[in-house]
Amino acid sequence: MNQNRSLQAAYTAARYPVPGHGPRNVQVMKDALADIDGSVASDIYGKGTVIEDFQAKMAAFLGKEDAVFFPSGTMAQQIALRIWCDRTGLMKVAYHPLCHLEIHEQDGLKELHHIQPVLLGDADRLIELADLEAQDQPITCLLLELPQREIGGQLPSYESVVDIADYCKATGMKLHLDGARLLEVLPYYQKSAAEICALFDSVYLSFYKGLGGIAGAVLAGDRDFIAESIVWKRRHGGDLISLYPYILSADYYFSQRKDKMEQYYQGAKEIASLFNACADVTTLPKVPVSNMFHVWIKRPLHEAEAILIQVYEETGVAFSPSLRARSEAMCSFELSVGDAYARISPEVLHDAFAVFANKLSAST
Amino acid sequence: MNQNRSLQAAYTAARYPVPGHGPRNVQVMKDALADIDGSVASDIYGKGTVIEDFQAKMAAFLGKEDAVFFPSGTMAQQIALRIWCDRTGLMKVAYHPLCHLEIHEQDGLKELHHIQPVLLGDADRLIELADLEAQDQPITCLLLELPQREIGGQLPSYESVVDIADYCKATGMKLHLDGARLLEVLPYYQKSAAEICALFDSVYLSFYKGLGGIAGAVLAGDRDFIAESIVWKRRHGGDLISLYPYILSADYYFSQRKDKMEQYYQGAKEIASLFNACADVTTLPKVPVSNMFHVWIKRPLHEAEAILIQVYEETGVAFSPSLRARSEAMCSFELSVGDAYARISPEVLHDAFAVFANKLSAST
Repeated sequence: MNQNRSLQAAYTAARYPVPGHGPRNVQVMKDALADIDGSVASDIYGKGTVIEDFQAKMAAFLGKEDAVFFPSGTMAQQIALRIWCDRTGLMKVAYHPLCHLEIHEQDGLKELHHIQPVLLGDADRLIELADLEAQDQPITCLLLELPQREIGGQLPSYESVVDIADYCKATGMKLHLDGARLLEVLPYYQKSAAEICALFDSVYLSFYKGLGGIAGAVLAGDRDFIAESIVWKRRHGGDLISLYPYILSADYYFSQRKDKMEQYYQGAKEIASLFNACADVTTLPKVPVSNMFHVWIKRPLHEAEAILIQVYEETGVAFSPSLRARSEAMCSFELSVGDAYARISPEVLHDAFAVFANKLSAST
Repeated sequence: MNQNRSLQAAYTAARYPVPGHGPRNVQVMKDALADIDGSVASDIYGKGTVIEDFQAKMAAFLGKEDAVFFPSGTMAQQIALRIWCDRTGLMKVAYHPLCHLEIHEQDGLKELHHIQPVLLGDADRLIELADLEAQDQPITCLLLELPQREIGGQLPSYESVVDIADYCKATGMKLHLDGARLLEVLPYYQKSAAEICALFDSVYLSFYKGLGGIAGAVLAGDRDFIAESIVWKRRHGGDLISLYPYILSADYYFSQRKDKMEQYYQGAKEIASLFNACADVTTLPKVPVSNMFHVWIKRPLHEAEAILIQVYEETGVAFSPSLRARSEAMCSFELSVGDAYARISPEVLHDAFAVFANKLSAST
């Protein structure tokens, strides 16, 4: 990720940031607490109405027996995999080469849990059933990430997920869902969260991606699995005396946004089509299957940066605070659609894309 | 810990709870945010003014090169010990038999870090230099808890701590401070936090004990030690995208209460003397050395419970929500003095102790 300060600064100064819901600032917490009475009691080390009610609500929503709130998905997912591995005694899991646990967690899974990951398939495509079938070693658990964020949020067809789930059941392999962005894929699948989760033994859901909460996650599964996860949560240092700032905000933004995923998804498709209409710009996937996608620009990083800064400054519309070099001639950024997009008028947006397209042509 | 619901209920209903600062409820967060502008930006994965400024402030306060904010002390301390052990390759630390890591963390130190603890001295007394000298095995790090919570918050003399620190330095053993309640012991030692911390290689401080924040901790030490701890923080799942609800509240209550520790300490001594004036009641220590102490009642648990419920209901003054059986004939509870005590008039308090003493005599 390029940390160009001018791009970041131009983004921050822009009137119409396209991604997300708005600035991540203290107001996000204030809004979540505004209508909550000050006398509402804190959770205390995982006990109390505020945490128990929310966990029950999430378990029901995900169609699982039980759920537990975690400060982070990093913690929740390592623990899920550890529990499954401890059951078989085989400390081996399979996941995509660009899985969050592989590239964003400083190898916590290996360093803390001594679990060996098997990287399944290729980095630039989705995991397929054939990748599993080709494995000649036993594996305790397969982690599937829906959508596969690092390749633009691509999704397998629902039938492919069912096939993989069937294969796991038949071979005794556990199936865990990295559902950080689970709600975001429901419009594409035209399924409920519970219908998707029914295919998985354990499920993690994040509250600060499409839902726009402050932080936190839930892990859901069978009652005994969740009971074990609570022990590990304490071991990890995640059983805080009070998690209510995260729980109350998760609940607040869940209520506000869970039914807006279709809107975000349609928005993503609209914006992606505007990008794809610009010469030398393509989105991955071409037609988004959730609220997110990647934008690839056929320009060297510094050139693309210069163009974007001009677009942000001239039009007030800003696509991303950062850029990532993909090759000498190519760079990319990620875009996730939330509430912010709906606040930009079509005219402003189309003007911005016209300016962007012009500057790209001028730089050929 | 006895989870008697009637005692808990009587405590919750009581007008004058003696311990702490007031109820742990949502108002604690609202108060901390009240004067903070909504536009203040969130920290993002450990970066940003809100976290960096507070860490710098805490490093300066503790007299260390650097500090990092953690969601919990459990996480911070396991990581501190892991870093020291990795440096020697000897996964062995020494601590008190009733150390938090030994009895409250579901063996995270062993299960996640494979560190073997050596229990030093006896459970019912402080660690002494002789306990260290008697060790015939190499140890990477000694963890010292000031005050030693599980035995009533007892403290070694400052000279004893210096002797232990000197011994550690001479033998190449690292010395880590479990300073969950560090501020609470400064009035007794008549030292600054930095003066105490200068004796230790690494230090952990909690924000929700005497300071009364919501949750969270800092770990402080040398720059390279802290840099390593940030890597482990991510591995543990503690590098949340936003920790600001805890940081802002920690900062708020730190400012409010850091200079009130003398008041809490004096309050603890006053209340302890009232307990010690009741027949069959003693405090541990007899004269508190911080804001906390334990109260031992020479009555079977159920008898003591019945008496306390009556005291709470008749006088409105409540000492503790729970009791712990120590033997067939003995039970105890912990009491930490904060802001709540100052809100109780001497008359109300003395009346309550008179009722308590009477009921104890009547039950002989």
